[in-house]
Amino acid sequence: MMATGETQTNPTKPFDLKAYLAARQQLVEAALDRSLPVTYPERIYESMRYSLLAGGKRLRPILCLATCELAGGTVEMAMPTACALEMIHTMSLIHDDLPAMDNDDYRRGKLTNHKVFNEAVAILAGDGLLAYAFEHIAEETQNVPAERLMKVIARLGRAVGAAGLVGGQVVDLDCEGAKDVTIETLNFIHTHKTAALLETSVVSGAIVAGASEEDVQRLSRYSQAIGLAFQIVDDVLDITASSEELGKTAGKDACAEKATYPKLWGMEESCKQAKLLVEQAKSEVSLYGEAALPLMAIADFITARTH
Amino acid sequence: MMATGETQTNPTKPFDLKAYLAARQQLVEAALDRSLPVTYPERIYESMRYSLLAGGKRLRPILCLATCELAGGTVEMAMPTACALEMIHTMSLIHDDLPAMDNDDYRRGKLTNHKVFNEAVAILAGDGLLAYAFEHIAEETQNVPAERLMKVIARLGRAVGAAGLVGGQVVDLDCEGAKDVTIETLNFIHTHKTAALLETSVVSGAIVAGASEEDVQRLSRYSQAIGLAFQIVDDVLDITASSEELGKTAGKDACAEKATYPKLWGMEESCKQAKLLVEQAKSEVSLYGEAALPLMAIADFITARTH
Repeated sequence: MMATGETQTNPTKPFDLKAYLAARQQLVEAALDRSLPVTYPERIYESMRYSLLAGGKRLRPILCLATCELAGGTVEMAMPTACALEMIHTMSLIHDDLPAMDNDDYRRGKLTNHKVFNEAVAILAGDGLLAYAFEHIAEETQNVPAERLMKVIARLGRAVGAAGLVGGQVVDLDCEGAKDVTIETLNFIHTHKTAALLETSVVSGAIVAGASEEDVQRLSRYSQAIGLAFQIVDDVLDITASSEELGKTAGKDACAEKATYPKLWGMEESCKQAKLLVEQAKSEVSLYGEAALPLMAIADFITARTH
Repeated sequence: MMATGETQTNPTKPFDLKAYLAARQQLVEAALDRSLPVTYPERIYESMRYSLLAGGKRLRPILCLATCELAGGTVEMAMPTACALEMIHTMSLIHDDLPAMDNDDYRRGKLTNHKVFNEAVAILAGDGLLAYAFEHIAEETQNVPAERLMKVIARLGRAVGAAGLVGGQVVDLDCEGAKDVTIETLNFIHTHKTAALLETSVVSGAIVAGASEEDVQRLSRYSQAIGLAFQIVDDVLDITASSEELGKTAGKDACAEKATYPKLWGMEESCKQAKLLVEQAKSEVSLYGEAALPLMAIADFITARTH
């Protein structure tokens, strides 16, 4: 990892996060589009592409590319892993939206996958994206030692499985309608449903670039802090924003009597905690100086966003 | 790969397939049991274990171990991959049985996963097993170069995704109730739903052991032949065997108006084609002599089985 702690940021030229995110988003969109051409049987590829290319911030791939560069690697080295992260994120959204789960009709302002196709195709599209994510890393990554990719695959698998997303979703479903959800349970849900894949996004880029274990652990702490902050802000927005701003059914969590941070802590304390976590995250990566500017700006962006 | 073409089989000591399969099944059961300990949240691990440890022939892991040994490797080298194959097979069964798919209540003589747990947990258990399969290979394999494991992971991903199992299942669902299913479509379904994962089982063991591309291709042809034979026999058994013998609802395919080989070719021709494919499979591996005895016997076993 580049030790750029001494590098001073030019105060006359602030980091333009908006331009950075827009440029990176475009790169990722193009790579995602290329990653999954339509072939027979067309309907399953169309279903996978419908959700994979439905927009979104592409935060996970962008974080992966950013830490790969931070650790001295290139965008090209990390792109298959970045795309795989978005495939897995998309798979979790498709399955979470199913009638047997959260039963959502809208996602990112569009009809959910099973509303456009059907339940069977939506389940299979998720399975296909999950399997393809691993295939894509193994097949498409260039100029990265296989040992590093094995580490990425092991972490990715853990982040999605029962020790990650899947475990978090099970506990989340169990809590629906419960009145006595503890802060420990709420933390478990969010560290598993949200923070685990974010952490993998952040550290996998660095692993692809060959970062040291110490740097990987530092980035892991950064990601855990922004992951939790992200979820708190999401909960707050679910209450304060309209459905139109969110592109999904607002107030849904409250209707389904789901545990949320604002319900547990109140709005003010939730916002305060989110800000505190963002500061912790930034202090973790400040020693990398200019190379960490995207990560610092992304951390700030989380509490500043309104949708 | 060991060139044991000259080795003559001892005619006084025929290969005991029954003992071989029983011993290997026991090894695989023990490894599967160890692979997935129960932890919080218990319900998802219990759901995954319920289906993963529900018995079955363990044909895929056994084939993987057999070709690893055939190619000069050890059981230990291939065991994580062998377990991963069974995890993926189990995941496909759990998802195929869902109400939105084939809507089956019984599997291997036991209630299906979603009947014991619920739909949401069954979907997540499948996702968890799929993700864990890749993690397990990457995390647990010892003494195998990472380059070989990358090849195994790429093939495994392809065998499950839209180019494999998922694609086959989509076409299968599309054909339900259709009266004019062509032989090409029927072949597509079976090469994708059954043969693709069998092929990966057969070749992945050899890849783990470092087999040559030529040997991998030979084993691939062997597996394609037994894969199709296996499916034809499955279709025949679905008509001739009782539910009790099968451990699943017999005649289900006919009820759902699914395309099957006996419907297309008749019973006699179906049996003849299956036997022909088994002979083809055996001729592919005969040059390996004694080292190929398990593969030869497994091929014979396919047409001989009654359940």
